[in-house]
Amino acid sequence: MRVLSALIASSTSTGRHLFSAHTFKSRASSLAQIFTSRQSPFMASEDSLRQALASKLAEIEAQGNNVRALKASGAAKPDIDAAIEALNGLKLERGSIEKDLQAAVSSSGDGSVNRELFRQTVVNTLERRLFYIPSFKIYRGVAGLYDYGPPGCAVKANVLAFWRQHFVLEENMLEVDCPCVTPEIVLKASGHVDKFTDLMVKDEKTGTCYRADHLIKDFCKEKLEKDLSITAEKAAEFRHVLAVLDDLSPEEMGAKIKEYGILAPDTKNPLSDPYPFNLMFQTSIGPSGLSPGYMRPETAQGIFVNFKDLYYYNGSKLPFAAAQIGQAFRNEISPRQGLLRVREFTLAEIEHFVDPEDKSHPKFSEVANLEFLMFPREEQMSGQSAKRIPLGEAVAKGIVNNQTLGYFIGRVYLFLTRLGINSDRLRFRQHLANEMAHYAADCWDAEIECSYGWIECVGIADRSAYDLRAHSEKSGVALVAAEKFSEPREVEKLVIAPVKKELGLAFKGSQKNVVEALEAMNEKEALELKANLEAKGEVEFFVCTLGKNVSIKKSMVTISKEKKKEHQRVFTPSVIEPSFGIGRIIYCLYEHSYYMRPSKAGDEQLNVFRFPSLVAPIKCTVFPLVQNEQYEKVAKDISRSLTASGISHKIDITGTSIGRRYARTDELGVPFAITVDSTSSVTIRERDSKDQIRVNVEEAASVVKEVTDGLRTWADVWSTFPHHSSGSAEDDE
Amino acid sequence: MRVLSALIASSTSTGRHLFSAHTFKSRASSLAQIFTSRQSPFMASEDSLRQALASKLAEIEAQGNNVRALKASGAAKPDIDAAIEALNGLKLERGSIEKDLQAAVSSSGDGSVNRELFRQTVVNTLERRLFYIPSFKIYRGVAGLYDYGPPGCAVKANVLAFWRQHFVLEENMLEVDCPCVTPEIVLKASGHVDKFTDLMVKDEKTGTCYRADHLIKDFCKEKLEKDLSITAEKAAEFRHVLAVLDDLSPEEMGAKIKEYGILAPDTKNPLSDPYPFNLMFQTSIGPSGLSPGYMRPETAQGIFVNFKDLYYYNGSKLPFAAAQIGQAFRNEISPRQGLLRVREFTLAEIEHFVDPEDKSHPKFSEVANLEFLMFPREEQMSGQSAKRIPLGEAVAKGIVNNQTLGYFIGRVYLFLTRLGINSDRLRFRQHLANEMAHYAADCWDAEIECSYGWIECVGIADRSAYDLRAHSEKSGVALVAAEKFSEPREVEKLVIAPVKKELGLAFKGSQKNVVEALEAMNEKEALELKANLEAKGEVEFFVCTLGKNVSIKKSMVTISKEKKKEHQRVFTPSVIEPSFGIGRIIYCLYEHSYYMRPSKAGDEQLNVFRFPSLVAPIKCTVFPLVQNEQYEKVAKDISRSLTASGISHKIDITGTSIGRRYARTDELGVPFAITVDSTSSVTIRERDSKDQIRVNVEEAASVVKEVTDGLRTWADVWSTFPHHSSGSAEDDE
Repeated sequence: MRVLSALIASSTSTGRHLFSAHTFKSRASSLAQIFTSRQSPFMASEDSLRQALASKLAEIEAQGNNVRALKASGAAKPDIDAAIEALNGLKLERGSIEKDLQAAVSSSGDGSVNRELFRQTVVNTLERRLFYIPSFKIYRGVAGLYDYGPPGCAVKANVLAFWRQHFVLEENMLEVDCPCVTPEIVLKASGHVDKFTDLMVKDEKTGTCYRADHLIKDFCKEKLEKDLSITAEKAAEFRHVLAVLDDLSPEEMGAKIKEYGILAPDTKNPLSDPYPFNLMFQTSIGPSGLSPGYMRPETAQGIFVNFKDLYYYNGSKLPFAAAQIGQAFRNEISPRQGLLRVREFTLAEIEHFVDPEDKSHPKFSEVANLEFLMFPREEQMSGQSAKRIPLGEAVAKGIVNNQTLGYFIGRVYLFLTRLGINSDRLRFRQHLANEMAHYAADCWDAEIECSYGWIECVGIADRSAYDLRAHSEKSGVALVAAEKFSEPREVEKLVIAPVKKELGLAFKGSQKNVVEALEAMNEKEALELKANLEAKGEVEFFVCTLGKNVSIKKSMVTISKEKKKEHQRVFTPSVIEPSFGIGRIIYCLYEHSYYMRPSKAGDEQLNVFRFPSLVAPIKCTVFPLVQNEQYEKVAKDISRSLTASGISHKIDITGTSIGRRYARTDELGVPFAITVDSTSSVTIRERDSKDQIRVNVEEAASVVKEVTDGLRTWADVWSTFPHHSSGSAEDDE
Repeated sequence: MRVLSALIASSTSTGRHLFSAHTFKSRASSLAQIFTSRQSPFMASEDSLRQALASKLAEIEAQGNNVRALKASGAAKPDIDAAIEALNGLKLERGSIEKDLQAAVSSSGDGSVNRELFRQTVVNTLERRLFYIPSFKIYRGVAGLYDYGPPGCAVKANVLAFWRQHFVLEENMLEVDCPCVTPEIVLKASGHVDKFTDLMVKDEKTGTCYRADHLIKDFCKEKLEKDLSITAEKAAEFRHVLAVLDDLSPEEMGAKIKEYGILAPDTKNPLSDPYPFNLMFQTSIGPSGLSPGYMRPETAQGIFVNFKDLYYYNGSKLPFAAAQIGQAFRNEISPRQGLLRVREFTLAEIEHFVDPEDKSHPKFSEVANLEFLMFPREEQMSGQSAKRIPLGEAVAKGIVNNQTLGYFIGRVYLFLTRLGINSDRLRFRQHLANEMAHYAADCWDAEIECSYGWIECVGIADRSAYDLRAHSEKSGVALVAAEKFSEPREVEKLVIAPVKKELGLAFKGSQKNVVEALEAMNEKEALELKANLEAKGEVEFFVCTLGKNVSIKKSMVTISKEKKKEHQRVFTPSVIEPSFGIGRIIYCLYEHSYYMRPSKAGDEQLNVFRFPSLVAPIKCTVFPLVQNEQYEKVAKDISRSLTASGISHKIDITGTSIGRRYARTDELGVPFAITVDSTSSVTIRERDSKDQIRVNVEEAASVVKEVTDGLRTWADVWSTFPHHSSGSAEDDE
């Protein structure tokens, strides 16, 4: 998400993050930290078992020597036999420790085998029912590119429509739609051209490319999980490397690859030193070949460059928010993690511009009472786990920096849970100090737990004035706001006036450097200089652009404080940015919605997605119970009514058994099924309870509409209409 | 639109279209033809005036010689004076003819000056109110890239939502969403890598690029419109060049540029020869640099490559349609025509797959009675104009090739007119034979008239089996459908069995060529050969791969007809493709919706967009009449009700005069305004009539919802509620 550019920028201050784009995306570093702390009980038993194993091996070696010595010295056979028996006993004990250690290692792997099995089941269902299709499959596909098939496409459209309703419409945001093709200068200003990179190594013979951190990570995990012979110290080292991986410089990564003897996984050839690879897809705008461009790596820059127009459009008033939904592109070195790490994806981003001196939010009280899993910085550092905190308390205690940030955290929580994300597997994790940009006031990620672990799906950052300032500087266009005072205010301003004639005489060609250095003083420095000049008449003054001290006399500069009347305050607004990875949210939603239940006959497991109506790809199916003209006519009439009410549905007039037809639509997450079993009334079945009611033909469409639009609950409908016995012959599930 | 790939493919057969991508997009060629024929009355008078001017100039020259001769011969002054007077008379006549010619030329320019003025007014309003923003404006922008600002973005979202409702939902289409990044092999198969080009010339000194056809077109138009001295013959030549411009080969264009002495417009430097420039944005997938990719130039290919999965998803039944909405990219050489010719745009495409032997449509009767402007091939060729034809008649008479194509033409007509396109400025123009691909059965463009002329906004083509076959061949995956017979059918099949032993003995190394040639015979050829062999025993047979005749004996091949039972018929489906340029439709909609009306005081002209509620960016505004806490509270209550009903609206509590606030929202095309002038009831004003009704506060939101959702008309509401006098003091427009 957008955190990346927060962190891109942070790199300018920290230096070490500079060339590591993955830091900005996967949060792997902090996850590893959490992993390390959360797993500490496992680690403890694992470590003691490794120590036990090592000492047992030492005992075995000693006893082996003992046996050989006895034999060599021609000792008595009973003595030798006894010594051999003792050796075998020790070997048995070693076997037992190894078994325990293997178990400890596997369990610290966090049930990854089960998780992978679960994921395979879900992904198989998703691909079989065309929620997803690997893109360009008939041409053997392209890693990291996926199509949304019909149900996936409908889910995505529903999620985006709800996003527009929940954020854009509800908050009167200004939505914009900017091109994906972006000229270089824009992404130069944002920092992406120089810093949006991952470290890559190449197979020195074949040229195949790998992500350097992936190879080191794979090596360490393999060692930790499969090599029982490593010492507790070595195990601790590997865990440490995993935790700090994202903070390693290219040189440090290169050194680790050499130290561990890591080779190209496919060929076992040696690898090149790590070097940065820019993750943007590059292209050329126009025919000349002289205008480089990139496919945007995020949508936010399109909003920032339009700030001036949008501010004016909003009546030159703050706060206001702009929003954008659109494609973003990242040319991943070697995409893994299936649907979570792709080369093209849909982002939905909000830039909420506020006065940095007032970050209160008028609607904060509407979310203050929400309570959900939060994982503040302090809890992460001290090895605790996420805990439920009322949002109002989190803001009041300063855990969350300000009301506006808190308001968006609350709105994101409502958005995700209304889509169907399980609130027990959703947490808001605060960025650690070293993850955050130097200018950022605060930053929280909405992380959703799925089979890949806790995945960042929404980033909510207070990015201060960084982005607008960067584009102001590069473009020369002031991206600022003004607060007009109701009456002029008197302000005291420091005035530094170098006397150029005197300075020119004294410093000749260096005059400009001295003038600039004098003017660049802050208030404290200037007042100090003033006092010293008044006391001594002449002072040594350091000019950094000359790299030396010069001698400044009292006559060369006047420093004073003057009172001025000001009619307005001009400032660069802060921006609070919630940024949504739509594809990731949808994928997590699939995992959270999926379950299996036995068929009626009990002979097979059936797949179900428990989507809320809001996101279900199709709201309703219409089935004539048997193939018959009258029933088909009724089904088509109901279908027409549903179309007229804008309810997406599917009519299935195949002769397949009704149970099979229900199973098919459960697998698409269709919440309701209308079955035509007479010409006057029909049944409506709810997906998860499998309960059925009976309604008149004329009412069927409107009942479904009311329930899918959320105007009535199923419970309400269930208590209103006569029930249809689900045990009847036709429901042969 | 997608016609381009129809025509790309046609180029393989015609040869001449091969390198001219603009042929496939602008329809300029046929437009020029229409222009030529439609303008014939103008041309006639223009030509006779040019002839008159030429003969007048000849007369003047002769008379000038006469005067000089008289002077030289020392003739009498009265004689000389008379001759001079005659000369002046002729010059006066010349002036008058020139004036008429200038007028004729201007009027044949089709009011282009007025059109440009109108366009400037509309575009100024659109840009001032942020319907559009030139992208990356603070960095001086990029030609051919535009942002949709808040109202434009809302209009676009509304148009796309209606498209989904009108096509995808109504027809149960399978919507997919594929990536923009596309690997080379896919676009190689579709023909884009080799043939999606425009002809370009370069300034030989500066390297600046121009489209070759643009320069020739500009030259010819300039000559025709501004140079009165050209002969009627020369004028006819320029008109002819304009008409055939798109059919010219690179060599022919190069020759014209040389012949006319056309230089680089900016520098007057000489130009290079024309050469093809591929219009796709190229990039590289993955880090290796070895996998070229392109930003897709259309969305259709994503559907074709998924045919197999989609067909299976549809229960292996035809017909069915797949649809896709998404970004497409074309790296135009030098974009002109503002918002109509852009480098990145949104397409909405439908691929409707049918059995080529049955193109009937079950719902055709629902559109058969529609009557609108159609412009069949024959009318275009014979210089007539478009005429209203009932759609049913057009299909019955075979003007439109088949019912399914006709059904989509009807649905497109309904779609466009419901959006607000003026049906008098919308026509369906059939492709001329030379515009159409050799495989295409029929092709119609929905053209909308705007200030740029008649613009192709939707292409509706029956592309037969071309696309699926191209991908089948390239990928080796059969993209076919099967019709299962209810009982096996007996079919008679021709069997050609070359006797390889005999052929090997006779032809040795050439055996393979002979076998292939024998097997490649069609039924008629084979039966003829059989008869000849039986009659003569030996026959001369041409083998094209050898380039000569060989002698075939009776023993070398057996030809027979055998009866076989078949259980199914396997075939490549035909595809009927409606392809929508969303940005073009929206731009034309803006021009059709725009009008000006005088302010109440009559001192200024106010801009209005008469958008239907369906597309209006905001459905309603809420204004407290004066700034007062009670009114503001009522306004906020109404705003909450509107949000809850999903009605996009804007609340304006500034102290600006109510008339000024109405004018502001009229300029955004907001259909309704609620003005709070009491705490119990409010007024609702309709944009175009400026009529106002009075309703209770509680009813306000639901009345607006009913009218904007199309459940009630304004006329109905107008007759139900008390009217509010628009002449009252508060409506100070």
